[in-house]
Amino acid sequence: MKSLKVIKIGGNVIDNSESLQQFFADFAMLQGPKILVHGGGKIATKLAGDLGITSKIVEGRRITDKESLKVVTMVYAGLINKNIVAGLQNEGCNAIGLSGADGNLILAKRRPVKELFSKEKNETISVDYGFVGDLDESSIDYMGLKKLLEAGFIPVFSAITHDGKGQLLNTNADTIASAISVAMSKEYETSLIFCFEKAGVLLDVEDEGSVIRSIDPHYYNELKRQGTINDGMIPKLDNAFEAINKGLKEVYIGKADALLQLKNENFGTRLISR
Amino acid sequence: MKSLKVIKIGGNVIDNSESLQQFFADFAMLQGPKILVHGGGKIATKLAGDLGITSKIVEGRRITDKESLKVVTMVYAGLINKNIVAGLQNEGCNAIGLSGADGNLILAKRRPVKELFSKEKNETISVDYGFVGDLDESSIDYMGLKKLLEAGFIPVFSAITHDGKGQLLNTNADTIASAISVAMSKEYETSLIFCFEKAGVLLDVEDEGSVIRSIDPHYYNELKRQGTINDGMIPKLDNAFEAINKGLKEVYIGKADALLQLKNENFGTRLISR
Repeated sequence: MKSLKVIKIGGNVIDNSESLQQFFADFAMLQGPKILVHGGGKIATKLAGDLGITSKIVEGRRITDKESLKVVTMVYAGLINKNIVAGLQNEGCNAIGLSGADGNLILAKRRPVKELFSKEKNETISVDYGFVGDLDESSIDYMGLKKLLEAGFIPVFSAITHDGKGQLLNTNADTIASAISVAMSKEYETSLIFCFEKAGVLLDVEDEGSVIRSIDPHYYNELKRQGTINDGMIPKLDNAFEAINKGLKEVYIGKADALLQLKNENFGTRLISR
Repeated sequence: MKSLKVIKIGGNVIDNSESLQQFFADFAMLQGPKILVHGGGKIATKLAGDLGITSKIVEGRRITDKESLKVVTMVYAGLINKNIVAGLQNEGCNAIGLSGADGNLILAKRRPVKELFSKEKNETISVDYGFVGDLDESSIDYMGLKKLLEAGFIPVFSAITHDGKGQLLNTNADTIASAISVAMSKEYETSLIFCFEKAGVLLDVEDEGSVIRSIDPHYYNELKRQGTINDGMIPKLDNAFEAINKGLKEVYIGKADALLQLKNENFGTRLISR
């Protein structure tokens, strides 16, 4: 089985033009088939602000209404995606920018209205999240993606998907990266690499030098029991181990500027099945 | 040689949601390999207005400055392109939305600064058009496009290209459609179909029933000599015949809502080499 790298970058890389330029060069250097998934960054929030579009928050949940969907489609699938593609092409990497609608590669489901108990109102309320798409590995056309990879293209995904009925949907970029990785595991030995703002999972959140090199499920449970791991990291790690259970080879979590260390398996924290 | 259709739609289809829905259904029905190129419409102008970005005009030429480029990238390559793709997917057409940067499929050249004589200033001035890309058939990676077609994808191009050095460029959609058609003629028997606001080339501009069914170069010269053809049409027709001279099979000009008439060669005006 060929190996495949799925790399996710977020706002901390996208919003800093120097980091982004460095990332283009480093990503282009990575050998073998690879897929990039990018988040949004601050540009969409700024554009929405400039247009006087305020995102509605209901009980702490952000709602993607029609106007907000337009903004994220323009910024994520247009401005950011095409600039990333042009930047990668400049480094000799044959990037092709995609949303989930393109080639019907990611078919999401619009999130159903949810019943929530509102403490403020002291009653159950219905929350319509708007044009938000949920998905899992079954949403990915992995054979379509394989065709693109085999034709020599490097897919670059924005976090816009569709429902197959003509409706675009706003989707979480981490979820897309995980779903693609798990789906592609049927055809490739797949590694998922999350680039975020820290050097990896830290033993001491105050100390960037305390990166844990490797975590397996047993050690993870121990770390959780000890309360060592930062609360904010737990959902990310839970999801990563869930993906590994579904056939993914490994998940790396680390800083984008160390990406080339993947070569000697010395990048951030490596999560493995045993 | 297999046949290929390259279809260009402009603002008159994009700005009217009913026409656009009908177009999705009709385009999806067309048999065989096909490529769509779309223009911009009024949305970009409106967004620029909402953001307080005014497009500079120098000596009648529109300048694409940095902010205007951002707007067209967001609107053409993001909002419009992805909504067209989602709409076509809804009709069972496996559309994949692209800019020229994607897969390095269209490599344009930034338009050089031009020296123009300004009547107003009564002197020669330099005009920098900004981030505008010029191109011809040699700019198209026709083998890359062929790979996508053979993998079962239907390419949908916005009129954003790049220079290969990381810079996106704003490009004329008619020019892209022509250049793609001529380049693809090496591999396919290619027909170029321009959808515009009239039913075809008219003998009498006031009479939509006066569509000329077919024009060859000889008849075209005669029509020009007679002054029958509307001045605005002449550059379009000159370009079309130039493309035909370069190997294109035929060019059709007509109204989007009659697209299915292509089947019986009864769509608008057909331009042919003899």
